[in-house]
Amino acid sequence: MSLQETILEMGKRARAASKELARLTTVQKNAGLLAMADELVSAEPTLLAENARDVEAARASGLSKAMIDRLTLTPARVVSMAEGIRQVATLPDPVGANITQWTRPNGIEISKVRVPIGVIGIIFESRPNVTSDAAVLCTKTGNAVILRGGSEAIHSNLAIAAALAKGAARAGLPADAIQLVPTTDREAVKLLAGMDQFIDVIIPRGGRALIEAVVSAARMPVIKHYNGICAVYVDKAADLAMARNIVINAKTQRPGVCNAIETVLVHSDVAEAFFKDTGAALLEKGVQIRGDARVRELVAAAVPATEEDWNTEFLELILAAKIVNSLDEAIEHIETHGSHHSDAIVTADPVAAEAFLNRVDSATVYWNASTRFTDGGEFGFGAEIGISTDKLHARGPMALEELTTYKYQIRGTGQIRG
Amino acid sequence: MSLQETILEMGKRARAASKELARLTTVQKNAGLLAMADELVSAEPTLLAENARDVEAARASGLSKAMIDRLTLTPARVVSMAEGIRQVATLPDPVGANITQWTRPNGIEISKVRVPIGVIGIIFESRPNVTSDAAVLCTKTGNAVILRGGSEAIHSNLAIAAALAKGAARAGLPADAIQLVPTTDREAVKLLAGMDQFIDVIIPRGGRALIEAVVSAARMPVIKHYNGICAVYVDKAADLAMARNIVINAKTQRPGVCNAIETVLVHSDVAEAFFKDTGAALLEKGVQIRGDARVRELVAAAVPATEEDWNTEFLELILAAKIVNSLDEAIEHIETHGSHHSDAIVTADPVAAEAFLNRVDSATVYWNASTRFTDGGEFGFGAEIGISTDKLHARGPMALEELTTYKYQIRGTGQIRG
Repeated sequence: MSLQETILEMGKRARAASKELARLTTVQKNAGLLAMADELVSAEPTLLAENARDVEAARASGLSKAMIDRLTLTPARVVSMAEGIRQVATLPDPVGANITQWTRPNGIEISKVRVPIGVIGIIFESRPNVTSDAAVLCTKTGNAVILRGGSEAIHSNLAIAAALAKGAARAGLPADAIQLVPTTDREAVKLLAGMDQFIDVIIPRGGRALIEAVVSAARMPVIKHYNGICAVYVDKAADLAMARNIVINAKTQRPGVCNAIETVLVHSDVAEAFFKDTGAALLEKGVQIRGDARVRELVAAAVPATEEDWNTEFLELILAAKIVNSLDEAIEHIETHGSHHSDAIVTADPVAAEAFLNRVDSATVYWNASTRFTDGGEFGFGAEIGISTDKLHARGPMALEELTTYKYQIRGTGQIRG
Repeated sequence: MSLQETILEMGKRARAASKELARLTTVQKNAGLLAMADELVSAEPTLLAENARDVEAARASGLSKAMIDRLTLTPARVVSMAEGIRQVATLPDPVGANITQWTRPNGIEISKVRVPIGVIGIIFESRPNVTSDAAVLCTKTGNAVILRGGSEAIHSNLAIAAALAKGAARAGLPADAIQLVPTTDREAVKLLAGMDQFIDVIIPRGGRALIEAVVSAARMPVIKHYNGICAVYVDKAADLAMARNIVINAKTQRPGVCNAIETVLVHSDVAEAFFKDTGAALLEKGVQIRGDARVRELVAAAVPATEEDWNTEFLELILAAKIVNSLDEAIEHIETHGSHHSDAIVTADPVAAEAFLNRVDSATVYWNASTRFTDGGEFGFGAEIGISTDKLHARGPMALEELTTYKYQIRGTGQIRG
């Protein structure tokens, strides 16, 4: 079979499986999830053996230590994947909920009901646990999923997907509910993206090149999980001790994630006091400060910020810092250079805060809290498929509800249109 | 300026206008709408003169009478457009509504708030009143809009858009809130579809060629308003008098629209009785019945249905008719051949009805009512931008709420992540 035929066949099977999945009860789906978790644990020897092949290849090709660490499965990580699945089984099932319901003057009763989307394509890089995390959320919401992981984890991903599909089938779920593209050929991404008759939405999780490839080729909606160029604005009315805590937390607690900040904007009225204290604390934490001219006057150790720095997701201990003369200038900077992900204001002034919350066009906007809370778990969603940087369908943390859509069910007694 | 520069400049201006629009109050937006309606009425002589140029060109190029009728503006139609705008001004504004709100154990308060999408691209064919209808719904929801109408209505569309923009500006709304692409060059559609830095979503309204052009080129989400291949299934437990009313209404009340039916499926147990009565009534209404072999045995005047007929949106007085042996067969037919728009079951059996409502994967599914109710007005939305045949973001009738998205606003007291 050609690659094109393989992918088309996967799509066809996924569509058929999605119709079966949509008819399952919550109890049936949860039983499937528990069987998937059990099967993953039983398959541990296989998973570790297959993963060892990937790790060996990664070492041979000179992948970085950090990348190899993300790729490596351990018994503890397998247990943790299985625990993750059991956790999802305990979450409420959004499918079937009546979102709203009303009766028209002619007596027809309209119900807006939550239903699965259908078939979801997930295209991701490196970490094999995404195979399990993503597949499980799709199963819980009655969606069939086609997964396409990074080439460096292909053996691990195939083993995980096979274990999940086996567990699902054992519990009576359709065997094609979870499918993984069995090749690392890049052409597969293009073929998936063109198959809008079988895939309802594609969620790419990865770097710019991956997302660009998907967006360019996709005929169906794409929900991008893109970068986070996030900022904290320290207003003239900020509590500076609070500002210090928030800036240090948002920059240093876990700098490699999308909801960490890359930029701090400080009002000129409080810049000297802020940088005197927080500047030193940041440097002590190993943060490199890249400042504009005024910041460099206040922080001797700061290096010059280039224009490019304002538009960069550093994902490491680097912070671009700028002094602004007004709230408007701060908002303008964020709107121009940020990625509309997560941005915060620190201020004791509710008028400034509300202006910021309303005017900054980001998925998540904060008043007096760290941007690090943009996360399905921190939101209380119990799980997350990622953080959408798109505006349509799902924005910000994306969990079970965001993996559903709706239909209108209308009940009448013979009404016709006049 | 090249076409590319013109389109880019429009995008840039629309983005800037969208930020202003998002900050307007409901009162300000409604004042803008009323000024737009007034301006449209004042501009009547210009509108009619510009429209006459389009109509003349259409006649010269041999456009059909029906097409020319759809294109033609009259004083009454101008008044009706203005009335439509005033009606939208009276509707509730969805922007700013708190969709949900909750507090986390750490004390941060999360609000999911309805906000404008930003910039909406609308690409449509022929009827000039779409220019006004679509622009006005975008303005009401605080979105900037870039319109691209059909070439045959270019002078009418430019005149309408100019009047609306003038009215909007007079009431203090940004002058670039409403822009119309001033050329009929087809390249413009491609340029718009590639401009995802400035346009957040494109809504194409038109035939297959237009939608295909947009979907292939679009980098941003597209909400398709595609065809309606809708069916009524007459179950074995149907009230046949009710079935007759519904089938006749759904087929003949206005055959040229997307929520009219193209197909009737009849359970074999009631086929004879149904066709004896309703077959004759349909023929009397001028409907051509294209039946399978069993239908043709019951309706002498029926012509043979081809395989293609099951997949065709006739938009005229033609009805494909098939006898099925079970509910399952009916659902299978609809899922295979329908366009997932609007489908109905007529039955007195609630079990069959609920199975149909749950298993038919269409935007709107009916039990004992005509499919003709799939309409923003009939739903009570007060207006509609169209009927989405997509599953994501908006499904079925699309009105004001569907022209918005959400953001999360988070209010804290200095919380950081541990």
